[in-house]
Order: sequence, then C-alpha cells, then structure tokens
Amino acid sequence: MMKNKNVETFLGCDSEYDEAKIVVFGAPLDATSSFRPGSRFASSEMRGDSYGLETYSPYQDKDLADESVSVYDAGDLELPFGNPAAALARIETFVGEIYEDGKIPVMIGGEHLVSLASVKAALSKYPDLAIIHFDAHTDLRDEYLGQKLSHASVIRRIWELTGDNRIYSFGIRSGEKEEFEWSKEHIYMQRYDFGGLQDVLTKLKTTPVYLTIDLDVLDPSVFPGTGTPEPGGVSFNDLHRAVVMAGSVLRIVGADITELSPAYDQSGASTAVACKILRELLLVV
Amino acid sequence: MMKNKNVETFLGCDSEYDEAKIVVFGAPLDATSSFRPGSRFASSEMRGDSYGLETYSPYQDKDLADESVSVYDAGDLELPFGNPAAALARIETFVGEIYEDGKIPVMIGGEHLVSLASVKAALSKYPDLAIIHFDAHTDLRDEYLGQKLSHASVIRRIWELTGDNRIYSFGIRSGEKEEFEWSKEHIYMQRYDFGGLQDVLTKLKTTPVYLTIDLDVLDPSVFPGTGTPEPGGVSFNDLHRAVVMAGSVLRIVGADITELSPAYDQSGASTAVACKILRELLLVV
Amino acid sequence: MMKNKNVETFLGCDSEYDEAKIVVFGAPLDATSSFRPGSRFASSEMRGDSYGLETYSPYQDKDLADESVSVYDAGDLELPFGNPAAALARIETFVGEIYEDGKIPVMIGGEHLVSLASVKAALSKYPDLAIIHFDAHTDLRDEYLGQKLSHASVIRRIWELTGDNRIYSFGIRSGEKEEFEWSKEHIYMQRYDFGGLQDVLTKLKTTPVYLTIDLDVLDPSVFPGTGTPEPGGVSFNDLHRAVVMAGSVLRIVGADITELSPAYDQSGASTAVACKILRELLLVV
Amino acid sequence: MMKNKNVETFLGCDSEYDEAKIVVFGAPLDATSSFRPGSRFASSEMRGDSYGLETYSPYQDKDLADESVSVYDAGDLELPFGNPAAALARIETFVGEIYEDGKIPVMIGGEHLVSLASVKAALSKYPDLAIIHFDAHTDLRDEYLGQKLSHASVIRRIWELTGDNRIYSFGIRSGEKEEFEWSKEHIYMQRYDFGGLQDVLTKLKTTPVYLTIDLDVLDPSVFPGTGTPEPGGVSFNDLHRAVVMAGSVLRIVGADITELSPAYDQSGASTAVACKILRELLLVV
Amino acid sequence: MMKNKNVETFLGCDSEYDEAKIVVFGAPLDATSSFRPGSRFASSEMRGDSYGLETYSPYQDKDLADESVSVYDAGDLELPFGNPAAALARIETFVGEIYEDGKIPVMIGGEHLVSLASVKAALSKYPDLAIIHFDAHTDLRDEYLGQKLSHASVIRRIWELTGDNRIYSFGIRSGEKEEFEWSKEHIYMQRYDFGGLQDVLTKLKTTPVYLTIDLDVLDPSVFPGTGTPEPGGVSFNDLHRAVVMAGSVLRIVGADITELSPAYDQSGASTAVACKILRELLLVV
Amino acid sequence: MMKNKNVETFLGCDSEYDEAKIVVFGAPLDATSSFRPGSRFASSEMRGDSYGLETYSPYQDKDLADESVSVYDAGDLELPFGNPAAALARIETFVGEIYEDGKIPVMIGGEHLVSLASVKAALSKYPDLAIIHFDAHTDLRDEYLGQKLSHASVIRRIWELTGDNRIYSFGIRSGEKEEFEWSKEHIYMQRYDFGGLQDVLTKLKTTPVYLTIDLDVLDPSVFPGTGTPEPGGVSFNDLHRAVVMAGSVLRIVGADITELSPAYDQSGASTAVACKILRELLLVV
Repeated sequence: MMKNKNVETFLGCDSEYDEAKIVVFGAPLDATSSFRPGSRFASSEMRGDSYGLETYSPYQDKDLADESVSVYDAGDLELPFGNPAAALARIETFVGEIYEDGKIPVMIGGEHLVSLASVKAALSKYPDLAIIHFDAHTDLRDEYLGQKLSHASVIRRIWELTGDNRIYSFGIRSGEKEEFEWSKEHIYMQRYDFGGLQDVLTKLKTTPVYLTIDLDVLDPSVFPGTGTPEPGGVSFNDLHRAVVMAGSVLRIVGADITELSPAYDQSGASTAVACKILRELLLVV
Repeated sequence: MMKNKNVETFLGCDSEYDEAKIVVFGAPLDATSSFRPGSRFASSEMRGDSYGLETYSPYQDKDLADESVSVYDAGDLELPFGNPAAALARIETFVGEIYEDGKIPVMIGGEHLVSLASVKAALSKYPDLAIIHFDAHTDLRDEYLGQKLSHASVIRRIWELTGDNRIYSFGIRSGEKEEFEWSKEHIYMQRYDFGGLQDVLTKLKTTPVYLTIDLDVLDPSVFPGTGTPEPGGVSFNDLHRAVVMAGSVLRIVGADITELSPAYDQSGASTAVACKILRELLLVV
Repeated sequence: MMKNKNVETFLGCDSEYDEAKIVVFGAPLDATSSFRPGSRFASSEMRGDSYGLETYSPYQDKDLADESVSVYDAGDLELPFGNPAAALARIETFVGEIYEDGKIPVMIGGEHLVSLASVKAALSKYPDLAIIHFDAHTDLRDEYLGQKLSHASVIRRIWELTGDNRIYSFGIRSGEKEEFEWSKEHIYMQRYDFGGLQDVLTKLKTTPVYLTIDLDVLDPSVFPGTGTPEPGGVSFNDLHRAVVMAGSVLRIVGADITELSPAYDQSGASTAVACKILRELLLVV
Repeated sequence: MMKNKNVETFLGCDSEYDEAKIVVFGAPLDATSSFRPGSRFASSEMRGDSYGLETYSPYQDKDLADESVSVYDAGDLELPFGNPAAALARIETFVGEIYEDGKIPVMIGGEHLVSLASVKAALSKYPDLAIIHFDAHTDLRDEYLGQKLSHASVIRRIWELTGDNRIYSFGIRSGEKEEFEWSKEHIYMQRYDFGGLQDVLTKLKTTPVYLTIDLDVLDPSVFPGTGTPEPGGVSFNDLHRAVVMAGSVLRIVGADITELSPAYDQSGASTAVACKILRELLLVV
Repeated sequence: MMKNKNVETFLGCDSEYDEAKIVVFGAPLDATSSFRPGSRFASSEMRGDSYGLETYSPYQDKDLADESVSVYDAGDLELPFGNPAAALARIETFVGEIYEDGKIPVMIGGEHLVSLASVKAALSKYPDLAIIHFDAHTDLRDEYLGQKLSHASVIRRIWELTGDNRIYSFGIRSGEKEEFEWSKEHIYMQRYDFGGLQDVLTKLKTTPVYLTIDLDVLDPSVFPGTGTPEPGGVSFNDLHRAVVMAGSVLRIVGADITELSPAYDQSGASTAVACKILRELLLVV
Repeated sequence: MMKNKNVETFLGCDSEYDEAKIVVFGAPLDATSSFRPGSRFASSEMRGDSYGLETYSPYQDKDLADESVSVYDAGDLELPFGNPAAALARIETFVGEIYEDGKIPVMIGGEHLVSLASVKAALSKYPDLAIIHFDAHTDLRDEYLGQKLSHASVIRRIWELTGDNRIYSFGIRSGEKEEFEWSKEHIYMQRYDFGGLQDVLTKLKTTPVYLTIDLDVLDPSVFPGTGTPEPGGVSFNDLHRAVVMAGSVLRIVGADITELSPAYDQSGASTAVACKILRELLLVV
C-alpha cells in the first residue's frame, strides 16, 4: 500500500540492478564550463521530461518497457563542484564497479569532461578500446586558462590514454587552428557531418567501442539548450541515424551523452531531443 | 467616430458572418493534456501575433484582404475546462450551426481532442467524409488513465465514428507498439513524413475531406511551442507544401490546427508558424 | 552498492511509511483552472528545488532531518486530467487510507479544488472538523461556467459538507460581490490579512482543524508563480508567522498547500517560498 | 447568432460609446525609450489578462459590471512609431474628441511621453488644470540626446504648458542633480513616497485634476515589468491607497497609467498590478 | 577621432584604428519597428556572446586573431531613439568618415532602416555601387503608417538613390502584393532562396558592392531572435555559403547585418548565429 | 599594470587608474555553487544595465560623475573555473596590488567564495580588520561535500584567518543547526535583520572594516536573481539604509557584493538592485 511514483527513473528503466544489462546514471558536473554553465541539471530534467516520451521506438520496433531490455537507472552521483579531479575520480570508481558487475555504463553528463573518467574506467577493462566521438568542438586543447582538466581538452586527455588513431571524431566545426592541425597526426576527424562513418564502423566491427556524444554536434536550431551553441550542425535525423547505425554495427561497451543545459531552452525541445537519443541508444546497445 | 482597433480578429478575417464562406473560431480546451497544458492560449495569441504577418501569400498569389476571400472570425468559444464532454458538445453544436448556414468551419485548438467534436458535426453533414490527419503521434489509444476522452485517443474515437479505411495519417513517429499494430488493420498510416500523400489525394479527389493538423507533426526545431515536442518531424516547407497540395486537390469541408501552446516558445516563432499555416489553409480552401 | 540519489523526496522526508507520523504527497491536478494552468508541476518542482533549502529551521529550532520528525513522502498520485470527479475520488480514497493508518496527511496541490477531496476524507474521521483557509480568493461560487467542481467554488463545496460557521477564511481580497455577501451568513471571513487569527485560534484550540493554504494569499511580488496573481496580498513573514502560530496552538489533523504554478516564475523564488512554508508546516504539525 | 467573445475589451468595460461616462483607450507608443522598449504591448496584454481579475472591488464595494459604472473601451490608437510628434498629435486629437463629447479620458500607455498629448488636450478644456504625478523618475530633463520629446522630459514639457506650481510629483527617487535642483523652484515634489498627499488633495479639492501614473513608482519587486526598474519604490497597497484617496477627494478630469512593459515580467504579476490599479481608478473616478 | 572609450570588442577585433582595414560598429536603432522592438541590443549582446566563439574559421582556414586580418571595433553609436532622421544622419556621417580614412565599414544593426544611412555614405564614395540584399521581407513599401522612414520601406528608399536594376534581393518570402508587383520593374528579386546568386555574382564581379543582410532571411527555427519571424526561410548553411561565396567573388566595400533582437531568443542561439555570420563576413571581406 | 583594455565600465566609473581612489573589478567565479550557478555573469550584466541608472544619488546628494568621486573600473579578472584555489590566488594578488597602490578595492562577485581572497589581501594590509557580513546564509560549514573551499564555508574560512569576535553577520536566516550553534562562540550574529547594527558600528568606528554583502540577504521578492533564494529576507530600503549607515560611520577599506545571478531574473530588477546598492556603496565609501 501507499506506493506512488516517488522513484523517478528515466522512462522504462525500471529493472533491478541485478537483472540489468545496462546501467544509466547521471554525472551532473559543470565545473569547468568557460561560457555558460548548467549541464548539471541535464539528468534530473531528462528523467522528469521523459514522461512525455513513449517507451516504444517505431524506428527500431523495440520497447524500453519490454522485459528483454533491462536497464537500471542508478540516479545521480553526488559530485564536489569545485574540485573536478575529485569528481572525475568518483565517476571512474563508479563506472569501474559497473564493469566489475559485467554491465554496460551509459552516462548522462554534465559537461563533456566527465567522459574522461568513464573512458578511463572502460580502458581498464578494454585496453584496445576505440572511441567514437560526436561533437561540434575539437576538445583538443592542451590546457585552458592553465587547467589541464577542462571540457575544452577532454579529447586531448583521452588521447593521452589511448595514443594515436584510436579516436574517431565526427561533426567537428569549431576549434583553434592548432587543434585542427594537431588532429591530422593523431586522430581521425570528420568535419561538419557524419561522412565516412560507415567505413569507420566497418573497420571497428570487432573492436570494443566507447561512444561519447556531445549533443552540441546538433545544430542549435535542434538543440539550443547547451552551453556553447555552434551554428551549422547536424539535424536530429542525422544524429539519430548515426547512433542507431553505430549501435547496430559496433560492440558498444560504454556510452555517454553530455552538454544538455536545459535552462537555455525553456521550450523543453532540447531535453526531448536528449531523451529520444538516449532511448534509441539504450535500445540499440 | 471613436472606432479603433478593439475588435481583434485573425489577420484579414474581416468579413461579416452572412457574407463569409469560411468561419474561423477558437476552441481553447486543454483539459486532458497529460504532460504540459497551455494550448488554450493558442487562438488568442495567434490573433494578436498575426499582426506581424502579411495578408498576401506570394506562394499562392492570393490575399486574405481580397474581397473574393471571405472569412469570418467568430472568436473563441467559452468552454468548461473541467468537463471535456460538455466542452465537446458545445463545439459540436457550434460547428453544426456553421454547417447549417452553408459555411466551412476552420477551428483553432486547443488540444487535439477538440477535433472529435468538429469531425462529428462534419460527419452529420457528410456521411462519406474522409479524414486527413497530420500528426507526430498516433492518438489511437483506446483510453488514457481510464479516460475515453483524451488527446491521446482522439483518432481512435474518430475511427469509432467512421469505421475502417476512412482515416489517412501522415508524419506519425510516436505511439505505443499496440497502436502501431492496431493501425495496420484500420487506418492508412504514413510514418515520419508525407510520402504517399499525392496518391491519397488523387484517390480522395471527389470525397468530402476533413483536414486535422496537429502541429506537433513539425519538428520541434520549427515548432517548439507545443505540449509534447517529438523530435524527428517534418520541416515548415514540408508541411506548407502538404497543406497547399491537399487544399488544391481536395474538396475540404472542414479543418483544424491544434496543439500550439504558445507559452513554451517565448520567441513567438511557433505562433508565427501556426499563423502562416492557417493563412495558407484559409487561402487554399 | 550502486545506490544513488534516485529516490527523490521532499527534503528530509526520508522516513519509512510505517514509522511516519506525517504523510506528504502530491495531487497534481489543474483541470479546472480557468485562467492559467500549471499547478500540476508544483510537487515535482518542489521536491527538486528543496535541495536548495536547509532541513533546519532557525525560527522553530527544529530539523526535518531529526529522527523525532518522521515524514514519509508518498510521491504523486496519478490523476486523470480530464475527469475532476474521478481525480477527487482517487485523492479521497488515498487520504482515507492515511487516516486509517493513524497518520496526518499533508497534500501538495495542484489547484485548490483538490482540497475538497482531502477535507471530505478528514470529515469522515473528524466530523467536528474546522477549516482554516488562507487565500486571496473567496472560492465561494456556486458554479463556474456551469461546473460545480471548480477551483473557484471549492470552499462553497466544502461548506456544503460542514454547514455554517465551520470555515475561517483569511487574506481574502477578490471575488464576486455575491460571494462576499453570501459569506457574511455562512463563514468567518477576514479580508486582506490575518487580523483576528489569534482569537480564532484560541476558540478552536480543542477542535480538530484542517489547514488549507492557497499560496496566492501571498502578494504576487513574493509569489508570482501562480495561476491568478492578485496584487495586495500578505508578505512571506506574515504567512510564515500565521502558519507557525496556527500549528503551535491548534490540533491540525490535515493540511495542504496549493496553487504553486512554477513555470510562471522562472526565478524559482515562488517554489522556494512554497518549500519553506511546507518545511515550517511539517515541523510545526 | 454566431456571436462569440471576439471583441476584447478591458474587463467590464462593455458600455456603448454614447452611454459611457469614461473612455478607456490605449496609446501604444514606446518610441523614445532609451533603455528597454516594450510598453507598446501594455494595453493589449492588459485587456487579455484582465480576464483573471474580478469586476468587483471589495475595497470600494463597487463593480465595473454594474450599470452605474459606464466605461467604453475604444481600443488602441494606431501610432507611427518612428515619429513621436505625429503620434502625440494623433493622441491629442483623439482626447480632444472625448472631451468634446463630455466624457473622461483614461489612457493606457505606452511610454510616459504620451501623457504630454492628453494633458495638452485636457488643458484646452480646463485651463486651470492641476497635475498629480506618481513616478520614480523626475522626467524633468530639458532634452535627452538632443531630443525635446522624450519620456525623460515629459514633465518638463508639461510644465512649459502649465507654468509653475501646477504639478505635484510623488514617489520620485531618480534623476539628475540638476532636475532635483530645478524642481524646487517650479513644481511640488515629494521624494520616495506619498507623504503630504493628503494636504495636496485638500488644497486641490475644487480644481480639475489630471492624474498621471508612471507605474515604475512601484518598487520593482511589485512591478518588475517596466523599462527602467528603480529599486526603493512604494508598495502596491501604497499606490492603491493613493489612487483611491485621490479619486475620492478630487475632481479627476483625465488620467493615465503608463510604462507597463509586459515582456519583462513573464509571470504576469506586473500586468495584474496594472489591471487592478486601472480597475480601482475607473471605479473611483 | 574614432575613439570610443572602454568598449568591449567583438571577438578578435583588436586592431588599432589606424592599422585596421575594416571598422565594425553598432547602430542600435529600433525606432520604427512596427511589431516587436529590441534590435537595439544586438551589437552589445553579440560582443558579449562572441566569447563563446572561436576566432578561427575551419571553413575558410582563416583566423580573426591573425595579424593579417585587421578589424577595429568602434563600439556603438549613440542615437536619439525618437528621431530616426537624426539617427540616420549620425550614421551616415560616421560611415563617411570611415570611407574617408580608406577603410571598409561593417555595421551591426539595429533595425534594417539603418542600412539606408550607410548605403547613402557608400554611394557618395562609389556612385556605381550595387546592393546585394538578403531578407525575408521585400522592404519595398512606399510608406508605413504615413512614415517614409521605416524598416518596411528601407529598400524602396535605397532604390530612390540608386535607380533601377542596382539592387539584388534574395530569400524574399513576405510582402504586400503591390511590393512584389513593383519589384518586377525595378529590382532583381529571388524568392525564398539563393537561387541565381552565382550568376549575379559573376555579373557584378568588378562592381563595388554593398551587402546588406537582414538576418530574418533565415528560417525562424535557426534564428527566432528577431522582431518579425517569417517561417519558410533558408538554413544556416545556406546563408553561410551565400555570404562566403559573395565575399570571395565580389569587391565588397561595405556591409551590415541587421534585425537580431536577442531578447526573443533566450537560448542565445540566434546571437551565436549572428556572431558566426559576422565572423565569416569579416574574414572573407 | 592594471590596464584591462576595452572594458565597458560601471556607470560613472571613468577615472584613470592613477587618479582613482577606488578600484571596482569583477571576479566572475561560480565554481562551487552547489545548487544553481550563474553568478559569473553578474559584473558584465551590471556594467551593461547600469546604463539605466542615474549617476546621481538623491539619498546622499552625491554624484558618481563628479570629479570628487574617482572610481576606476578595472574590468573582470580572467579566472580558471575548474580550479577555485588558483582563482582565489589570482584575486588575492590583484587586490594586493590595489592595496599597494593605496586604493580601496570594491569587488563584484561571483559567488561568495571570492570574498575569502580579497579579505585575505585586506588582512595583509590591515591585521586588525573587522568583517561586516550581510547574508541570508551562515556560510559557516567546515566543508561541503568534502571541499574546504566552498561558497557555503567562506565565513568559516575567513574566521580561520581572523579568529574569534572579528566577524559581524546580519540578516542570517538559513544554515545547519551546527552552524548556528558554532556561531555563538565565535562570531557576532544577528538573525533575520539589521537589528543591533547601530551598536556594532559605534563600536567599530576606528577599526578598518571590510564589508562583504551576499545580496541574497534581500528577500527573493526584491532579489530573485540569485542561486539560492531564501524567503523571509530584508527589503531594498533596509539594505540600502544599512549600507549607507555603515559607510558613513565606518572606515571601510574594502568591500564586495556577491551572488547576483542575473539569468534567474529576466526582468533585470535584481541587476538594477545590485547596481543601485553598488552606486550607493561607491558614493559612501
């Protein structure tokens, strides 16, 4: 008796931890945002607004409410805002535990920097991990205002862990000249769109892959609710197709979506976009 | 003397009732919205903001201010919010009167449920009526939280009146698995876009048609001002072309546009979209 | 392991049901709002934003986190929006169960109409119940647009259950002339402020009392986030004092706070006001 | 038949012109606003939102819906935005016609500059007119960026028409040092509040009076929806009392309320304040 | 001369005046906006938000921070809001001085009317000037509410200076029937998109060209932050390509971007669009 | 040194550095905000909106534009967001330089944590410094989520530098029970209001004083634009009087105002409040 809807999870993610194949959780950090903070509110807003979405995907003909799809929503980590290093350590530990239990982590950022921690944990388990990276920005700075840990340098930090030719970036349309130059030697980079994705997927078919999605890869018309809107991005259908395609072909062992900053889009459309991409991602993994 | 602009009508809809061929009116009901209410404000906001639109359409080379186009704006019905059945009865009566007077009703919702009432009135006059339905959602639930009268079940209720193969849905991208299954037996449904519309129009050429537009068929980038934004929709030009095409080919005997919820889009762009679609609809009917 | 913050309760309301003395729950109904809906979002927004509030009250020197204060947050009822009568029945049943279990219900509206259901349940248990009512509006209409069940007639409906001289209204500053006239014969009414509250409390000392707070009793400068802002209201400190005073003197057997509509106040200040009043109410009961 | 609510007037102002004693109209000009424009939308927003207000005033025990109170809402003047001089001429002519017909004009601004035109018309009819002026700002600049016609110089321009000691300003808390100095010789000025109002009213008892209210006299907590919020202002009850007191004692032959800029207060509370002050003003005149 | 003190510059525009080849400045006039004002805030908002943009363009492989690109940001002109004629004169003088010093002016509006002043100055220096015009609206009215100087008649006024066949409009989708008719005799007009731009560019290769961009040529999904959103416009990539193409081929001697009204898009996406178009324009000129 | 180029100054703060007696600057840090970030935008928003304020104070009959008042606005410090310790070090160095040059620093936060840095610098110069602290919150936590550097512990950190009985807090109405207990032994604390301020001022007359104002001491009705609105605060006039009184009596050697988060109050009223308090502070120091 007396049991109402006071456990708020992302739609359909109602499995118990032990039965779950996938663990969704929030990493609400936006400590290093240089321009406009607010991505810390993404996961909680997404849980609430997922109420407006169906659990069933007509695109994939799958349903999050089906028993065959078992996702546990572990809620949000509590992170110390003024100390990114400590926050990342907390995330890394948590993702490590998910891996230990043989499950797949899907993280909701927070700023893009959080990916560094979960990739680190993924690399511990899968040393040959490849990274698929959807983003508007290169994120390849060596440092930002003297700080090594920054949303603007997260891919560079990840590269320090993986070495050359393990990172595949798509949709990139903003960065410093030096970053674009540097990228040529060290990572795969497709500018502006998802051109070449098919080939990369074919190549990585048997490799464990971590998929990190900075949602600002989308055009701001589709996704204005983000800290650093960068015009000229991809459409919802572009991103949706890329995610489903990647998920169908690849062996994804971890994933995240980051940089939703819901307060910048009072219509809720950006949150709806993030929720739908997450639903499709959970269904395809 | 002393006569200023204190009669606010939708732009150019300045005919007297007796001369009018078309009657525009608002049905500001949003009683059953499960997620985010607010569509009750659509008609009044559209009248105000239509001031920013021209009466002339370069697309159709027609003008709402021309004498040949005679539209009467009957204002808004006063509806009891807590009693959807009574509200629908009020709408049905009103639309019935419009039909008695030999005019064409064009209704501004309100939530999509209001279409049930005007379709009912249209069916009284045109028993062989076909329904063209543009929407993101199936709206085919048998009930919602135990209620038969719901925005999520309006097309199912209409089907109960028309029977099989009289409803043609386009743009559908969200619903429960059961709704998609059910639809295969009972209605025509085109997912995601307007593919096949040309063929349907040809087939229905001589049939009286009611056109019901749930504006959330548009992508939320184009139309964020709605209760349940569903990413992956059609563009403005897609919808615009579909409306003008349908209006040119078909014998439209009634129409509505629903689910603008202006408060969710403070830019006013969604209201501008609704106004322009309505202008084009009025000019083409 | 793996247990994060995915149960979202109002701050400090972490008791198990069995140990709890008070049960907080949300009744997210805004079906009959004639002007601007949105109070359905109050309870969920309050739970989220209560994170910004302390559990400790320096005013009362009490702490919601203390073991001696045991409150269970039962989450939100799921209510059918288009059917107020069914929704009220659902609330009444739920509150009845709380009473059966010997606990005190504290309800978060929703529109003020929800109070009718919980008062009804309270009257079943306490036939001599008195009602203390804080509000800007009389809420004494016999009907509204033909509907008996309306936020504008809730106190009139309650009076039909209690009979004369059992309702004590404070802060009233808006209504129809007829409502003010009618009130003189049937209920106690203090216009504009809390004058006379001390005397009423003294008189009701031994009577079981239900306290219903329509938060629009506050001036819109303090509480803009409501459907029908009515300038000229009381200050936060006025309301705070009245609540603590009433709670200290009276034997409160049920209470509610209603009509927060968070979307109308994007600063969150109105939600903070509602949270703080609720904290003080929970601590004083 | 077919007559719905498509004539939108301020609440209860439903008289025909011929029977009306008072004529309300909008002067939606915000051409000279130096900081933030938007007051052009005040009158139309007030008409819409007045739906949330009662016609009955418990303060005065009078009702706008009563037959004895006869107000005609003449709608909005159409004014050329880029030409303040032409706009003012248009207003002056219109107000002149109202006076010719023996009625009392009550104008809804627009920026405060519009008062210059209606005061001019009032002076034509009542050469001994006195001006009661409620405002946060002195409005006494001789010019602003080289322009004589400016919201910042409207009282100075009015003084050029009346000469010394005919203007009584209250609530003033902002201006240049020179304006405060100048005021000592030429007008009556009460800083910060309504101190001394009683004496002024007594003195002006038999004089025809024009009451011009710049609503920014209110504290921004009460009235944030204005172009130039100036902290430290009066409360709603202060202004309400001053208006009712002035209206009861004086022979008011014209009035206006200006500088509501509704877009700056998305809660609608500022519009509610303006509506309620206007209701009280119409009832007391 | 030319020293506006303490101005926050548009990103990377850090040259001293004497070394600069291009002078960027703001003309914050929105005096004649008939619908929704606010474009006066464009330049200051763009300077602030350009912080979120990179100085480097991967599209052109050029960098605003490079020494070879020398732009001086002269800040905003101070314009008298209530006197468009005086404001235009001020702009014309200022642009004239820029030309005298052998530099290229790039103006940030303000409403589109400001282009009249800078085109006038450009015509003084380049009597054979051609005008490339990107816009949703014809802007060809002879007058608007009796005013010759209006944002709705700016191209008509410019035509009075240039005579026939010197103006090339693209993207036009709104206007009165008369304007479309009139255009056929007097200017080049491409409806809806940039079709035919390549041919026009080829033809004008050796002619000095002024490029005037009313940003509402963009679809409101991309650019909701404008006074008169007109659905059915071009995409960001369309406009971006057109600007870069025009800049690469033509000899641009002056340019402007107008009609950003940042308050209508609280996400900042519209400002980001304007900033990026301006960056690309500065880099290509 | 001290030359930040192209900075838009706070109104009237146009002195050259060398002549200035006071140096205003921004410290846009909001790294440790636990609830809602955004105070980093305070200083830039205040500079822009100060355009709507007069330089003259009728309260003090002084003018920021007078030559006798010489304030230099040094712009904003560039601070690394993800590293509060480094950011504080940067502020401390900067304030130290201001002291070395014999000037008085007035800092615009940012979150309240920034005060720790400037107080540290002030203590270097004035070892007997006393702290006057206006705030809603105790800010006395020993740590917050394991972090010593937090907006919730800034006064505790300052106390570690000053020792007992050197800090005087006013307006406090929120904190943990332990903080209120702790405060009794170590600092002076006035709950809820400015009671006792006069006595404290008299006592500190000859002591060098640093005045730190967390603007959330104001009631959220007056100041909704802040990260953690705490109802029940002081009025604008209360704070204004306290600041002017303190400034008149004391020897203030440094000051700050913090925690304006402008995005949470789209009316701009909160920014206007902050600007006016800063103007009065600058005039009284």
